[in-house]
Amino acid sequence: MKSSILSVGTELLFGQITNTNTVYLSQQLNLLGIDVLSHHTVGDNSNRLSHMIRQAFMDCDLVITTGGLGPTQDDLTKEIACEVLEDELVPHPPSMEKLENYFKKLNRQMTENNWKQAYFPSRATVFPNDIGTAPGFALEKDGKIIICLPGPPREMKNMFEKEVRPYLEAKTESVIYYKVLRMFGIGESMLETKLLDIIDNQTDPTIATYAKEGECSVRIASKRSTLEEAKAAVTEIIAKVKERVGEYIYSYDDKDLHQVVAKKLMERNISISSAESCTGGLFAQTLTEIPGISAVFDRALVTYSNRSKVEELGVNPDTLERYGAVSKNTAMEMAQGLKKVSGSRLCISVTGIAGPGGGTADKPVGLVYICAILDDKTVCKKSILRNVNRNWNRNYAMLSMFDVINRLLDEKEQLG
Amino acid sequence: MKSSILSVGTELLFGQITNTNTVYLSQQLNLLGIDVLSHHTVGDNSNRLSHMIRQAFMDCDLVITTGGLGPTQDDLTKEIACEVLEDELVPHPPSMEKLENYFKKLNRQMTENNWKQAYFPSRATVFPNDIGTAPGFALEKDGKIIICLPGPPREMKNMFEKEVRPYLEAKTESVIYYKVLRMFGIGESMLETKLLDIIDNQTDPTIATYAKEGECSVRIASKRSTLEEAKAAVTEIIAKVKERVGEYIYSYDDKDLHQVVAKKLMERNISISSAESCTGGLFAQTLTEIPGISAVFDRALVTYSNRSKVEELGVNPDTLERYGAVSKNTAMEMAQGLKKVSGSRLCISVTGIAGPGGGTADKPVGLVYICAILDDKTVCKKSILRNVNRNWNRNYAMLSMFDVINRLLDEKEQLG
Repeated sequence: MKSSILSVGTELLFGQITNTNTVYLSQQLNLLGIDVLSHHTVGDNSNRLSHMIRQAFMDCDLVITTGGLGPTQDDLTKEIACEVLEDELVPHPPSMEKLENYFKKLNRQMTENNWKQAYFPSRATVFPNDIGTAPGFALEKDGKIIICLPGPPREMKNMFEKEVRPYLEAKTESVIYYKVLRMFGIGESMLETKLLDIIDNQTDPTIATYAKEGECSVRIASKRSTLEEAKAAVTEIIAKVKERVGEYIYSYDDKDLHQVVAKKLMERNISISSAESCTGGLFAQTLTEIPGISAVFDRALVTYSNRSKVEELGVNPDTLERYGAVSKNTAMEMAQGLKKVSGSRLCISVTGIAGPGGGTADKPVGLVYICAILDDKTVCKKSILRNVNRNWNRNYAMLSMFDVINRLLDEKEQLG
Repeated sequence: MKSSILSVGTELLFGQITNTNTVYLSQQLNLLGIDVLSHHTVGDNSNRLSHMIRQAFMDCDLVITTGGLGPTQDDLTKEIACEVLEDELVPHPPSMEKLENYFKKLNRQMTENNWKQAYFPSRATVFPNDIGTAPGFALEKDGKIIICLPGPPREMKNMFEKEVRPYLEAKTESVIYYKVLRMFGIGESMLETKLLDIIDNQTDPTIATYAKEGECSVRIASKRSTLEEAKAAVTEIIAKVKERVGEYIYSYDDKDLHQVVAKKLMERNISISSAESCTGGLFAQTLTEIPGISAVFDRALVTYSNRSKVEELGVNPDTLERYGAVSKNTAMEMAQGLKKVSGSRLCISVTGIAGPGGGTADKPVGLVYICAILDDKTVCKKSILRNVNRNWNRNYAMLSMFDVINRLLDEKEQLG
């Protein structure tokens, strides 16, 4: 089944709110094996709305709308849906009764326009709304289905869970299964080049690559008649992808790198502390996003000034003078000093030039040293980042720290 | 001018990412006085994309696309835009040179598909991309304009600010002037209630309130024939808003709270350090987003464990035992200890319960103590946050720290 999602609401066109309904519905429809071909948003304008629904039905069997089911004159979705699929609005007694009770309970007078919410297309399947006044509905004609849902996300989701999903499950025949592989240390175009023949020769599973802030991911999805078939198809492709770029993959399950690392630390009960310069606490802040991390995270010493590196971590002033604050020697002494003061089993340090200022020919913006000590094993890594900008550099340095730790914990070789 | 925003990307149709580009562009176009009639999202499908652009041009003069400008085969926006507005792709020498230099600098091999990003429609106005590899462009024909921008939000916004806004401003006849007032410590519905009569009685300037993660802002915009008229109208409304909610306003210029604070610290050369527990380094990380902050920021001690609070900050173990790690006494001793070890003129501490676990009847999730010492002045603040979730709580606690400092620096009363 092919679908389109249509949001109705002027506030969306003003950019006053973010369209989270569409994200939710897209996820849910994909999970049901229903392709989502397009999203559309229009204001409270009956011509445009009507035109958009007709357009969507040109290549879709299913149109889901959100919004425009309220009691006011602006709320036109029901009327338009009815017109497009050639039906007429009639009173819906169960909804009338519910509405009356609702207002009685609130001790509020019903206005004439409130009744509007109890009228539905004569052939509609009405979806009750437990937590608001506007019920939704589905209406079919000649194999085309329109489902109209209320706009408030809480009401929409609640109605989808309880009414729409079972309604749609009864209509679909295939199942979708997918996995998202997450990678660090490889760029998107390099990744695509390495997977090009697999991507090109494939119609199902589909393989798509994505990039975000220094990370890449690959989504492998299969749509088959049974879950077993879909799973088997996806698993086969995963094995091929792993062969090509396995060294960069840190999650086969769409987990963030810091989640992967935190889980390992907590499972193995390995205490951890950080000594940060250029990242300014970003590593600690990211690690402490994880609930329960206090079981293993001891402390972070954000030693921004040279003086604080000496005082907090016992970095030798001579080292700072001779090699500079951004050097392998300083990174090493930071990690060693941290080990001494914290006693944590895993100690990681970072020092670098985040920019935009502070770079020289010898030490450009983007130069970063990371040093990690796990028990009696030490690794140091020098990187020269792409220098996109200060925040990107800091973020990438932070991700590199997690990558270094992840490889150390897995006894895998560090990236060059 | 009437416009439509078209997002290109299969990941949007899968619901993998939220479409924030459309929110941003809608706001910006509305600010420029350009009506936004619709939003559309399609996947990497050339027929659908081409059809959608043609459809949008049926009632719009301007179509803005985001996404699909990358180097891969899936990236088709440029080709389709070119086809719809009847032009052909030709090499664009400045982009070729930039691309070559970019890869040289990274010391990375260019793949064949990278060159694609240096081809543009022959009549296009090319918009350089400072922070990514895909430039954007505008192409016109018979009064219709298509503007194609990269998909990554950071690149898209940067290009809009620097290139697209001036390009569009030159196409519109009236002048828009606006100011964004930023506030902390007041909720959006309270803010709206306080400004209701001003908002209701106003057509120009328009007044809109926004809320994000514990902060509020008010945008006051006027569209007149001259800049002077627009400025005068906006200034008059600002004075009224200030009368009602002035105590919450920290910026009349759309600056972030941490930017406002960092600027004051740097201008007055006040050294600063932080001692953080529940925020896990978020305060330091946020402050160090500011380039040049190393002139005043000395260190952050993220003392997550009790032991580290004692060892790093000299918090009395008795205090921890008697009052608990989340208490006014501990917050105070953290700040005092930090003052001793860092010698910074401004020392700020925070301790709280970020959740989801760890709360008790006495000390619920969301309880936060902040203590700040500036020279010989000390302030302590207890808050019980709304407890939206762990990250919201941590973020709000961090904002509160900046708010406490901002008021301390301005010798303004602390919020209750």
